[in-house]
Amino acid sequence: MTNFYNLIKLITSNQIKFVRSLHLKKNRDVHNCFIVEGEKIVDEILRSDFNVHSIFATKDCKSVVIENSKTHLVSDKELERVSALKSPNKVIAIVEKRDNNFKFLSVEKGLTLVLDNIKNPGNLGTIIRVCDWFGIKNIICSNSSVDMYNPKVVQATMGSFLRVDLYYTDIETLIKRLPNNFPIYGSYMEGANVADVNLKEDAFLIMGNESVGISKKLEKLISNKISVRKYNSQAESLNVAIATSILLYEFKR
Amino acid sequence: MTNFYNLIKLITSNQIKFVRSLHLKKNRDVHNCFIVEGEKIVDEILRSDFNVHSIFATKDCKSVVIENSKTHLVSDKELERVSALKSPNKVIAIVEKRDNNFKFLSVEKGLTLVLDNIKNPGNLGTIIRVCDWFGIKNIICSNSSVDMYNPKVVQATMGSFLRVDLYYTDIETLIKRLPNNFPIYGSYMEGANVADVNLKEDAFLIMGNESVGISKKLEKLISNKISVRKYNSQAESLNVAIATSILLYEFKR
Repeated sequence: MTNFYNLIKLITSNQIKFVRSLHLKKNRDVHNCFIVEGEKIVDEILRSDFNVHSIFATKDCKSVVIENSKTHLVSDKELERVSALKSPNKVIAIVEKRDNNFKFLSVEKGLTLVLDNIKNPGNLGTIIRVCDWFGIKNIICSNSSVDMYNPKVVQATMGSFLRVDLYYTDIETLIKRLPNNFPIYGSYMEGANVADVNLKEDAFLIMGNESVGISKKLEKLISNKISVRKYNSQAESLNVAIATSILLYEFKR
Repeated sequence: MTNFYNLIKLITSNQIKFVRSLHLKKNRDVHNCFIVEGEKIVDEILRSDFNVHSIFATKDCKSVVIENSKTHLVSDKELERVSALKSPNKVIAIVEKRDNNFKFLSVEKGLTLVLDNIKNPGNLGTIIRVCDWFGIKNIICSNSSVDMYNPKVVQATMGSFLRVDLYYTDIETLIKRLPNNFPIYGSYMEGANVADVNLKEDAFLIMGNESVGISKKLEKLISNKISVRKYNSQAESLNVAIATSILLYEFKR
């Protein structure tokens, strides 16, 4: 009976409008919701402490989602209309955002990754995934950084956003509250080769914006400029997600 | 006079059709041409040994391109029609492909990166950019890998495709022609922590497909399985461009 009841819940045109509206940050902020797509990650989020608001699944979707009382059945066409992906994948869930405003946590233990004005959703998503891999628990983003609930960010994390805590705050203010001599590493083209640096375990690592790097006002707060050494090349830069990954690898090595 | 003459060359509807057709591999193969977009990279390619077939630039484009006799003036609207990018950037050049069929080169010197069935254009472009950074001269792709002249690959390389040689071939055949005991490293989840491995300078490093990894037929040719160590995490995998970058970093470290 339950199954049958669920399966006849169809999507309304207002719901289609609502889901589509969540592609934009301003609407995600108003409704405090974001979109998660794909069977694997929707399954995972149902088992997490995130609150799932509603689910829209095609008949090809497997049972655990289909049997959920929050699930509405949609056609492939309808899924395409609400999805933020080029190739939608069977199911989309509307999930309540968590509070990502920074509270002064114990950031003085372990390595904290600080992102200054990262703009590309794919980069942020990839960085979250890498932090998950390396067991980096806290990411702190400048308020100007891309929204972690952007569908492209969520997609690129491959589920890792469930396991990494990400906060938005004013980085300058935060750093000024840290103890004196707390190590603040910053990634700079002209920095010391990270392989030669005696890296501290309890530290901040700051990565800068894709085109302009770390902002001037943060530069003066940095205690160590580090870089990934370049080998006889005219290459101008590394992608920020790549540079972050290599630096994190070296911190953990 | 020359300037004036160039500036009145306008784009024809057949040319628009032709440029757009190059978004697809089959047409790039037929015409032996590919698309390069953006002022910086078009400037760079004019100074390289690639043959430029024609250029389509808006009036905002700076002089070095505008003064070239191959340049046609286009409106912003026309540029949008021919571009493969969401936000086209002033100029697009049609460039002759180079021969990327593998000839048996001196791959026994230095590190050669081997890509087995890499499908995502952004991944291949990012990997080419990273190889440029680390001074890796040769990339060898399986014939099934994404086309390096795909506009998304070219874009993601940020110009690095000019400095790295990339070939397509049958990898199994190639490896079988290498000397016995030539080190063939392969990236595997269960491989040895790369930081603990005594890496050889002259070697192949094989990276596998985004979802299924290295193909079975290549697995038996691999002498050392290596991996980037994971730290207390439920993360399932690293993006292939990230894993490649970290492994190359460790080879060069």
